[in-house]
Amino acid sequence: MRFDVDQRLLHGGDYNPDQWLDYPEILKQDIELMKQAHINTVTLGVFAWDALEPTEGQFEFGWLDQVFDEINKLGGNVVLATPSGARPRWLSEKYPEVNRVDDRLQRHHHGFRHDHCYSSPVYRQKVQEIDRRLAERYGNNPALSMWHISNEFSGECFCDLCEANWQQWLRDKYGSLKALNDAWLMSFWSGLYTDWQQIKVPSQLATTKTHGMALDWKRFVTDMTIDFFDMEKATVKAANPAVPVTTNFMAEGSNGDFVPLEGIDYAKFAQHVDVVSWDAYPQWNNNFEPFAETAMKTAFVHDTFYGLKNQPFLVMESTPSRVNSPVAKAKRPGVHALSSFQQIAHGSEGSLYFQFRQARANSEKFHSAVVGHDNDPHNRVFQEVAAYGARLDKLGGVRGSKRQARVAILYDWQSLWAQKREAAFGRDRKRYFQTLEDHYAYFWQHDIPVALVPTSRDFSGYDIVIAPMLYVMTPKLEARLSDYVAGGGTLVSSYFTGIVDPHDTVLLNGWPKPLQQLFGIRPTEFDSVYEGEHNRLAYAGQVFQTSEFAQLMVATSATVLGTYEADFYKGTPAVTRNAVGQGRAYYIGPRTGRDFLDVFYERLCHDRELREPLLEETRPEVSVQARTGADQTYYFVMNMSADKQAVTTTMATVDAESGKRIAAGPLTLPAYSVRVLRSK
Amino acid sequence: MRFDVDQRLLHGGDYNPDQWLDYPEILKQDIELMKQAHINTVTLGVFAWDALEPTEGQFEFGWLDQVFDEINKLGGNVVLATPSGARPRWLSEKYPEVNRVDDRLQRHHHGFRHDHCYSSPVYRQKVQEIDRRLAERYGNNPALSMWHISNEFSGECFCDLCEANWQQWLRDKYGSLKALNDAWLMSFWSGLYTDWQQIKVPSQLATTKTHGMALDWKRFVTDMTIDFFDMEKATVKAANPAVPVTTNFMAEGSNGDFVPLEGIDYAKFAQHVDVVSWDAYPQWNNNFEPFAETAMKTAFVHDTFYGLKNQPFLVMESTPSRVNSPVAKAKRPGVHALSSFQQIAHGSEGSLYFQFRQARANSEKFHSAVVGHDNDPHNRVFQEVAAYGARLDKLGGVRGSKRQARVAILYDWQSLWAQKREAAFGRDRKRYFQTLEDHYAYFWQHDIPVALVPTSRDFSGYDIVIAPMLYVMTPKLEARLSDYVAGGGTLVSSYFTGIVDPHDTVLLNGWPKPLQQLFGIRPTEFDSVYEGEHNRLAYAGQVFQTSEFAQLMVATSATVLGTYEADFYKGTPAVTRNAVGQGRAYYIGPRTGRDFLDVFYERLCHDRELREPLLEETRPEVSVQARTGADQTYYFVMNMSADKQAVTTTMATVDAESGKRIAAGPLTLPAYSVRVLRSK
Amino acid sequence: MRFDVDQRLLHGGDYNPDQWLDYPEILKQDIELMKQAHINTVTLGVFAWDALEPTEGQFEFGWLDQVFDEINKLGGNVVLATPSGARPRWLSEKYPEVNRVDDRLQRHHHGFRHDHCYSSPVYRQKVQEIDRRLAERYGNNPALSMWHISNEFSGECFCDLCEANWQQWLRDKYGSLKALNDAWLMSFWSGLYTDWQQIKVPSQLATTKTHGMALDWKRFVTDMTIDFFDMEKATVKAANPAVPVTTNFMAEGSNGDFVPLEGIDYAKFAQHVDVVSWDAYPQWNNNFEPFAETAMKTAFVHDTFYGLKNQPFLVMESTPSRVNSPVAKAKRPGVHALSSFQQIAHGSEGSLYFQFRQARANSEKFHSAVVGHDNDPHNRVFQEVAAYGARLDKLGGVRGSKRQARVAILYDWQSLWAQKREAAFGRDRKRYFQTLEDHYAYFWQHDIPVALVPTSRDFSGYDIVIAPMLYVMTPKLEARLSDYVAGGGTLVSSYFTGIVDPHDTVLLNGWPKPLQQLFGIRPTEFDSVYEGEHNRLAYAGQVFQTSEFAQLMVATSATVLGTYEADFYKGTPAVTRNAVGQGRAYYIGPRTGRDFLDVFYERLCHDRELREPLLEETRPEVSVQARTGADQTYYFVMNMSADKQAVTTTMATVDAESGKRIAAGPLTLPAYSVRVLRSK
Repeated sequence: MRFDVDQRLLHGGDYNPDQWLDYPEILKQDIELMKQAHINTVTLGVFAWDALEPTEGQFEFGWLDQVFDEINKLGGNVVLATPSGARPRWLSEKYPEVNRVDDRLQRHHHGFRHDHCYSSPVYRQKVQEIDRRLAERYGNNPALSMWHISNEFSGECFCDLCEANWQQWLRDKYGSLKALNDAWLMSFWSGLYTDWQQIKVPSQLATTKTHGMALDWKRFVTDMTIDFFDMEKATVKAANPAVPVTTNFMAEGSNGDFVPLEGIDYAKFAQHVDVVSWDAYPQWNNNFEPFAETAMKTAFVHDTFYGLKNQPFLVMESTPSRVNSPVAKAKRPGVHALSSFQQIAHGSEGSLYFQFRQARANSEKFHSAVVGHDNDPHNRVFQEVAAYGARLDKLGGVRGSKRQARVAILYDWQSLWAQKREAAFGRDRKRYFQTLEDHYAYFWQHDIPVALVPTSRDFSGYDIVIAPMLYVMTPKLEARLSDYVAGGGTLVSSYFTGIVDPHDTVLLNGWPKPLQQLFGIRPTEFDSVYEGEHNRLAYAGQVFQTSEFAQLMVATSATVLGTYEADFYKGTPAVTRNAVGQGRAYYIGPRTGRDFLDVFYERLCHDRELREPLLEETRPEVSVQARTGADQTYYFVMNMSADKQAVTTTMATVDAESGKRIAAGPLTLPAYSVRVLRSK
Repeated sequence: MRFDVDQRLLHGGDYNPDQWLDYPEILKQDIELMKQAHINTVTLGVFAWDALEPTEGQFEFGWLDQVFDEINKLGGNVVLATPSGARPRWLSEKYPEVNRVDDRLQRHHHGFRHDHCYSSPVYRQKVQEIDRRLAERYGNNPALSMWHISNEFSGECFCDLCEANWQQWLRDKYGSLKALNDAWLMSFWSGLYTDWQQIKVPSQLATTKTHGMALDWKRFVTDMTIDFFDMEKATVKAANPAVPVTTNFMAEGSNGDFVPLEGIDYAKFAQHVDVVSWDAYPQWNNNFEPFAETAMKTAFVHDTFYGLKNQPFLVMESTPSRVNSPVAKAKRPGVHALSSFQQIAHGSEGSLYFQFRQARANSEKFHSAVVGHDNDPHNRVFQEVAAYGARLDKLGGVRGSKRQARVAILYDWQSLWAQKREAAFGRDRKRYFQTLEDHYAYFWQHDIPVALVPTSRDFSGYDIVIAPMLYVMTPKLEARLSDYVAGGGTLVSSYFTGIVDPHDTVLLNGWPKPLQQLFGIRPTEFDSVYEGEHNRLAYAGQVFQTSEFAQLMVATSATVLGTYEADFYKGTPAVTRNAVGQGRAYYIGPRTGRDFLDVFYERLCHDRELREPLLEETRPEVSVQARTGADQTYYFVMNMSADKQAVTTTMATVDAESGKRIAAGPLTLPAYSVRVLRSK
Repeated sequence: MRFDVDQRLLHGGDYNPDQWLDYPEILKQDIELMKQAHINTVTLGVFAWDALEPTEGQFEFGWLDQVFDEINKLGGNVVLATPSGARPRWLSEKYPEVNRVDDRLQRHHHGFRHDHCYSSPVYRQKVQEIDRRLAERYGNNPALSMWHISNEFSGECFCDLCEANWQQWLRDKYGSLKALNDAWLMSFWSGLYTDWQQIKVPSQLATTKTHGMALDWKRFVTDMTIDFFDMEKATVKAANPAVPVTTNFMAEGSNGDFVPLEGIDYAKFAQHVDVVSWDAYPQWNNNFEPFAETAMKTAFVHDTFYGLKNQPFLVMESTPSRVNSPVAKAKRPGVHALSSFQQIAHGSEGSLYFQFRQARANSEKFHSAVVGHDNDPHNRVFQEVAAYGARLDKLGGVRGSKRQARVAILYDWQSLWAQKREAAFGRDRKRYFQTLEDHYAYFWQHDIPVALVPTSRDFSGYDIVIAPMLYVMTPKLEARLSDYVAGGGTLVSSYFTGIVDPHDTVLLNGWPKPLQQLFGIRPTEFDSVYEGEHNRLAYAGQVFQTSEFAQLMVATSATVLGTYEADFYKGTPAVTRNAVGQGRAYYIGPRTGRDFLDVFYERLCHDRELREPLLEETRPEVSVQARTGADQTYYFVMNMSADKQAVTTTMATVDAESGKRIAAGPLTLPAYSVRVLRSK
């Protein structure tokens, strides 16, 4: 059933029968096991090009027809993927231009999925051909829920075709070489371009140190990725424009981080998809942070993806137990439902897995699946999946409900990229998304909803707008921020805001006058200290440690709320508040820990009367997230810990699964458990 | 004298007069110094191709004739190497195809020894030519002891010739592309091969993530290496089939590890050599472990190489003092004889060094040698070598004696490779050989001999067979293990045994039924925890810490000997014993420390009445290893510590060097000292 | 004004108006701000080729004429750079041969500054052309102070043209292949060359393990660099031979080190420049060492560059505040003048900055400058620069004064290179320059001047010569050292002295007899221990820890001053003194800490009556450095700490800035402050 008209929360995941065509007894069991697992949705065809077109021009749809039939019988949905994420080997061999060229300018053989050139006309033609046939055959199939274009778009190609597109993209953008040379300041180190063809792709053998170019290259990669996506989208829409189109976005996790993918500007990409979806692989039960911290970061990413279109999204992939990683720890009992309900709580319209049946070989063979290698429904993992599916069956009412927030955090891929590019102050020390998470943490821990908002979208409706490290600045954005505050908004910003223009060039004559007026400060000097070195920040009667970065400033019209307590700038302003029109603009000079942010936001929330309404007292181990529909609000009360938690509700609710009324008062949450309550 | 008829223990090493031809006075001193050092064997010609064939087709054997003459006069042996390990530069320049292509698909210039293509017909022809001439000239020389084919075979080549051989090797193995695609599960990620020529060598530019291919590539490299070796072997055998042939195998040490080389399946290679030999470079007196621990690991590797053919081997290279490494610490007084006697004790027929005279320049110039840069026989190193040689002279009776054991540990390069390939659970966390060493440690510390046995060889004659992490499984091996136990054997295995088939594909429908019956268990789930995380194992009234890996299971017919004590599988079986026929099969679910293994094996040895007979009490610092000849047994009693050790013998013996009788009773061993005792 | 006739200390730095030609209002402000900042010198044209020759053969000197005019009006100096450090893009595109080939043998596109091939005839021709025009136009301009050839020469090229030059260089050096094969010991591993063309550049694809070649390659790179420099020098001298020529040398800092650049033999290069200049970027106020330690290392590098020609040099680049590095910490108040005065104190004829006006974009945009992004002379950085300039204005008398010393430390790039090449004992553990700094530290801390002297220069006039780790030895150097001692000198040397000949080949028959006689010792064995392992050294009634390296020896004629206290060489000589003729030769066997060196040198200085004359007591936090002119001596008294320091002078002096007399007695130095005193 089409995603936009379906009334069920989706439950299911990637299903690759094309890898099991020689095992008809397995395929038969699959359908039976899907029923037992309360699965209503399968994602088909992600890597099935080989099975669909085993040799050039010969198409085999019989097996796929049969799966569609089975799913239709089941009353289920199909999310149908175009197979462009992994082309067949015959294609790579016959048309080498479809293979990517790496940053040493060597062309790859076939060998890597997601390793095709976005520019290749041949590849585009072959993709269109198979997409067209899929769309014509299945575009009106009643089981078809959504199109899943390609898979996990990412990466770059340095081939001649991409180089030509790059040069054309620059021509279109700049019009003249003079304009480009000025924008990138190519008079630096005698780098002036005198011919468009001199502008090579930034491989390891060519120019890589031009900051404006580096930023434009990121934009070009995003644009080429979107262009490829749009080509596929148009092809499938031709058969039936009503079916929504998505592609699965990603997050990255390493060294304890969990943040959205850096490589592509999803804020721009999201404008081209009908539904945002993403692949959620946090490391639950890890050894480097409390469980609730993992939950907070995951919540941040969920909210970021919700914010891309400010509408419900879909978790396209997640894992029933182990992730395919060096540790690959099994999810503890209860964690599967907990982490899956968290998806729904933050706006996902379902929980899909990679994958239904565990692979027997190659890279994903120990990534967990609904059905494991033992093919046994008594398996704990299967049992927990089935139990979660049964619970989802009772929660169709959640479908379509929205997230509401009075607080916004702004995010901006341009600022991310530019700050990660600049060597001074340390590329790896910037931690842009991670800093946003630090600001987000207070609100999450107190169950106060936050909208994550791309800078391109209107943010004027929020009570509080938080925009730290908003590095890339334009006069228009300065004006939007100023107008917002003048109109009564509360703005919070920090060091590293407003440093460069969109060419990554430092703004002439120092910090922009409009920002100086907005914040009531004049920056004087920027300090940066070594690891282990700190300053101190006196604020609200307390003293906090600062580290890494410190903007020094004088207050012109601002009130000084906090001061530095050490070094040669002892006693100077560190945190300020400026009254502008009906609103207030706060500026935080140094990098602080969460201890300061907690106190800072506690005061702000107190001022603005922001609090979560359901529980008497909030705590990090219990997360309450709400989705609001036409008639009622759903509260997901989640115990993000291995200990029992006792909380107290402030109002009468209804258990959304059983329909039983629950009086205000004590509520006990077993370890890792979830209660879904309705407002009425 | 031919190695197989010689009655002396060999003492000597690599001798490179070809690098000193301009220093006749040095060459003259060499022979005199050899006498003083009690040297009876020299390895010639390892890198002498330049001296033998300075320009193409012009051969110079005069200098080598002369060395043979000198050695004959000395009554000594020559181990004669074929020079293929380091081709002359003129050959690389004239025939570039002989140079290896690296994994970025770039062909090397001449420059690296051991850097030739195994496939090149030109190289094979040139090697055959020089080998044939050497064999014809020296094959019947009375001094010739053994052929030393090439040097330290290792590495891979990615050239077109190797690619063609690779494709042919696969054709021969699989017969059809369908069979290959099925074996490697190439339907995964649309990887199906439609032409043999699409199967590229796994360079960095091509497919590297196909597990079945990765395993086959390792096998192909082993086979190509052996094929090259066999070609050389046949060439030298043509002149005199009676002379034994060897090539020097290797071990690897880094980060505190010391294990056999990973890259080549020596269990297979060993079937092609007449005598196993290896280059022994442990890091004695290091800063990261007790001396006895270094000794244990070295003993393990010695026993592994003994086990390859279950017959005495030869240490082809070792060092009189410093190894050519970043620290290059000098061996402490006594350690030279100690470490050399350990070689003999574990089955080496002598102690050879790299090298006799220290190099003056290039990579090995600070690697120690019998004769140092000072050319001075009063040098401590020279003195210790000479003293050791004098002791060996008195121990000819050891020659040909065997190692005997009732305990076997199985090892398997296929399981090593497959476990190091798989990313999930961490390639570097598997530590297969290191885990075997953990099991071996108990026996070594208690002086109970252990046979290290490749899985391909019959193991039915042992009382106990230990086979942890036997990852790659076949029905035949399942049957052999089951028959062994049914026939009265004691089998010990563990987590990660029996997971994949020889294509590195997970066995369908879960753990094999024959293994379930053999061990009396049914695995349920596999857990893996982060560094610093642990479970606890209750066993025999004690509690042990477990880490990293834990197989969860239910006991079907097995007796539960140990249980997990924490987390969601608290109370479930961790260690089991199953009675099958006349025997018993033990299964260890989690990764444990040696503390558990010590208790476990102590009970097992007690049950099976296994103990070392010579000493009243064993301790790690004193190692006793025995070799048994036709008439008597030699006990090597070695003090693996810098402290004096007092032990007590249980029986009367004879000092094998002095011939004096020694009554049972106290025996004092000075620091780092060795006593060789005979049973009569 | 020509550098050699100017009587002012220079103050100024790199000025890049060519990057601001579109901002005439900025250019106008520049001149005014220069006046305010007391700037008398600007370095022009370093990266200005694009502005000078925007397209091939079209030259634009108008803008530069104008800057010269302005500087002339200001009465200032121009240091005029040739622009070869960064060629224009049109040149790289039209003549690809000018781009470097990297060590994977891939040719770069235009993209990196300093990335041109030194061998390319086209590049040399194009450089000569632009240099000639600059010289003809400005060679006699009254503002011209000095030529600045190219920029920060460094790096290597692996192209065919360089390969041909390399082969020719070797032909010229060795004459015959036989001589080369012998020198490099190519009989090792069958490496004999049979044709000059076989001698490839040592790329990653070719021979890299031949030590003699590695050393010759370093020499070749130095020679090619000098050859390129000489070509440019000759071109600019043609127009006016009187103008001095320099090029800016470099130091390297990482992991807490600060030492001269490793890649080029500056001792050789210095013979080709008229004035030594260098770019000084120490990390002041870091987190890994006391401030005085940074000052000591910086002093060492200053003295090294002074020593290259034994005459005053020029700091060509330094930074007013932040360095463009991952931390980029701002200089603390006072540190700018302190670090700049230190330059003068050690022999610099001025303090120049990179750069006058801060860049807005690309790699150096956050490197600090005299005029910052805010374009505001009230900026703290600008203020401190201006104040320092005003002080320099009063100190013209310092100009031309010399550094005097009775102690010399020898340094030798050949020994540096050879010790970093050898793998045994660890390339990274050698730390040659850092060890020289350890010896230097005692003298610096006690304000005793030290001359840093290349081995090629006469050192016979010094009371004490310190030459640890003088690894590369020749009979001539042995004789010079012996003669020096015999003539009454005091020589100090150590482990790793005299190990190899200039081909990096170990000296035959052990340690050279002349050295044995000189030091009165015979080395026996060399030990090297692991990290965390130590021996002890008993010396002068104290016990010191030793580490890493230990030369074992017997004393033949030497007096044993210190002995090892542990391990198998307990009680053997560790530190010795040998009387030879009128002098003494000390040998230090082990690597020690500074604690030992302090005691050792304290005794030596006491013996030789060496002490600083100005202060009653020295301490590390207060550095006194002297420059002596025709009539008087200038003492720079520098507080290298953040604390106030009280010292006592032993004689009456004159404040060199105010001209006021200062009686002997107490002198208080505020934090980071500097006093400049004259002897009369």
